[in-house]
Amino acid sequence: MKFADRLNRLGTETAFAVAATATEWVAKGNEVFPFHLGDLNLPTPENISAAMHRAVSEGKTGYCPNAGITPLRAALAQSLGKQRNVLFTPENIAVQPGGKPVIGKFLRSVMNPGDEVLYPNPGFPIYESQIEFNDGIAVAYRYLDTPNGFQIDLDYLESKITPKTKALIINDQQNPLAAEMTDAEREKLANLANTYNLWVLSDEAYFDIRYAGESKSIVSLPGMQDRTVILYTFSKKFAMTGWRLGAAIGPKEIVDRISRLNTNEESCTAQFVQWAGVEAINGDQSGAHELVRVLKTRRDATIAGIQTVSGMRVHTPNSAFYVFPEVSETMARTGHDDLTRFALDALHNSGMSFCTRRHFGRPVIDEKGNYIRLAYSGIDSSQIDKGLSRLAEWVNSK
Amino acid sequence: MKFADRLNRLGTETAFAVAATATEWVAKGNEVFPFHLGDLNLPTPENISAAMHRAVSEGKTGYCPNAGITPLRAALAQSLGKQRNVLFTPENIAVQPGGKPVIGKFLRSVMNPGDEVLYPNPGFPIYESQIEFNDGIAVAYRYLDTPNGFQIDLDYLESKITPKTKALIINDQQNPLAAEMTDAEREKLANLANTYNLWVLSDEAYFDIRYAGESKSIVSLPGMQDRTVILYTFSKKFAMTGWRLGAAIGPKEIVDRISRLNTNEESCTAQFVQWAGVEAINGDQSGAHELVRVLKTRRDATIAGIQTVSGMRVHTPNSAFYVFPEVSETMARTGHDDLTRFALDALHNSGMSFCTRRHFGRPVIDEKGNYIRLAYSGIDSSQIDKGLSRLAEWVNSK
Repeated sequence: MKFADRLNRLGTETAFAVAATATEWVAKGNEVFPFHLGDLNLPTPENISAAMHRAVSEGKTGYCPNAGITPLRAALAQSLGKQRNVLFTPENIAVQPGGKPVIGKFLRSVMNPGDEVLYPNPGFPIYESQIEFNDGIAVAYRYLDTPNGFQIDLDYLESKITPKTKALIINDQQNPLAAEMTDAEREKLANLANTYNLWVLSDEAYFDIRYAGESKSIVSLPGMQDRTVILYTFSKKFAMTGWRLGAAIGPKEIVDRISRLNTNEESCTAQFVQWAGVEAINGDQSGAHELVRVLKTRRDATIAGIQTVSGMRVHTPNSAFYVFPEVSETMARTGHDDLTRFALDALHNSGMSFCTRRHFGRPVIDEKGNYIRLAYSGIDSSQIDKGLSRLAEWVNSK
Repeated sequence: MKFADRLNRLGTETAFAVAATATEWVAKGNEVFPFHLGDLNLPTPENISAAMHRAVSEGKTGYCPNAGITPLRAALAQSLGKQRNVLFTPENIAVQPGGKPVIGKFLRSVMNPGDEVLYPNPGFPIYESQIEFNDGIAVAYRYLDTPNGFQIDLDYLESKITPKTKALIINDQQNPLAAEMTDAEREKLANLANTYNLWVLSDEAYFDIRYAGESKSIVSLPGMQDRTVILYTFSKKFAMTGWRLGAAIGPKEIVDRISRLNTNEESCTAQFVQWAGVEAINGDQSGAHELVRVLKTRRDATIAGIQTVSGMRVHTPNSAFYVFPEVSETMARTGHDDLTRFALDALHNSGMSFCTRRHFGRPVIDEKGNYIRLAYSGIDSSQIDKGLSRLAEWVNSK
């Protein structure tokens, strides 16, 4: 039987292969330190689970509106509007089964075949996959590794804009770089979007995972509310990755279309999960605060551990839960010239399991350096210490 | 801001407009008898909810494999394989957030732009919408209203097969007709699929909602397992419409591709909902049996009520939870020649709220008769009696 040609353009999250390799290594009796996971090994706050149980016992187990229950749309509109200093109403919100569905639905709503979409690379691999699967041209923009951290190469990005450019995907509090935009970068991107009349998908998955400073959204800048769709998710802030709850937030005109895609693709998001979401937004926030406190401890342990490994160079991020060290010297020291091979040998010699730059989009032209991603969301501080000591032991003995 | 042209090809479930009209009429102080809903006003069996609560308290709140948790895939493989007399393994199962996602994912996996797909009409409106939205040509096949009930017009269907025909969508235990195939019809369709090398999507959403006889699946027939994807859902059998849990069941080769679409579109289905699904399949079945018992009572009440309304002609179905009466005489008696207007006047004169044939796909050429759909899944027997008495009162007084 034959399959659709379009499947040849469908990418995936190759990070899952790293998880499989780690699982194999564990099965052979080895200890593994899981820095590859973007998942959280922390419980969902109790009040949120309790709200879901209550909803089920109240019989909230039937279909609900395609765009989501009104109380959740209202809660999100108020909370996000306040944080971002814009006015949202429930009509600006289309609830989704996770943050990820927003990517494809946004693209299917704005992109014609052959349209170009700018996306961050390294970046979340589903951007590239969904642009191409939905008949668009994925045009990567890149980052510069500066003494002040990773910064978008804005000249490069602007040089990639053509009359076919339809949309710009941005991911402040970036995965995998954990880079953040300066105000100047954000303003420049907003200017470009306004000048070239681009739609903007602002992936704000890590907006609330923050250890210092304050998150800002491009939607707050002049002219942006009319052209921006925010990808919102409950996954990270409330340790709800497996609950599958998120939202597309944008102008009513596009939200109506995304809601029609909901009707076509999955009817609605599980009703009682949405009621739990109302509690997450409006209820006691101590669980969410505790989560950030724990993650900050882990970030500090991760940075401290990396600094003991010979040849690794890393920026200390103030948000998200990743670090993205440059490891060229470490590779040279351990006799590697291939990043994937280095990662595998690190696993076999120290138990450290992590993704590399290669899991986050096709390499951009003229790319320099060798980077790995350590996620500290799924591993306790004591294991972080132990894993990085083992890595240091292996590397530093060479 | 401009939207994608493809949105012009995106349909919807227009039945939601009927619900809105009914809600308005209620708000004006009128009693409404909701026969328009395909939802169930019955609770999910207790043991299923309890299994979900247990899963949450055990911390099953993180990401899980894109194709679903192995215990659920195993439970579905065993249960469905046994019922349908074929061998399924977990590799044949891709868990979904509902049955509906299977439609689009199947089409995106097998259909190239311009390919033709045969689909039932009247039928579930999302078939037509998703074929066209995903760049295919939706080719309707039709039903004949015979003394033995609705039957697929097989000659017509075969005449519509061309070299561009890629797939055939079937829906035994049909919505909205509540028609069922005879063995001969099912065998003929299997022969056509084998002869013309077609993929088959077998929508089996109502397979287990049955009052007499036995459901059969086309997948059981020779040559069909290699070309058939079953749309399975927990929604109807276990009164879990708002839980959003279903599965695509088919050859490993297509299930792998559908799982990759899962990775791209929503990562996975809510983990704890899947654990509840394991209990639904493997646990106590008394809740599911009770549900069918209640629905049978409602079916009998609906048929009895219709028979008191002058000019309505109806078949008594043995499965699903719809009836599809022909109402031309009733319309003539009440001075109507437009079906939509008749439905609205019925609401205003009797409180009866229902969908019509027009909510289930574009009319097929040379179509005869005027049909309405009464769903008895969301209304108690006493209300069924009352609503149909009111309708009879209004109609019979003319």
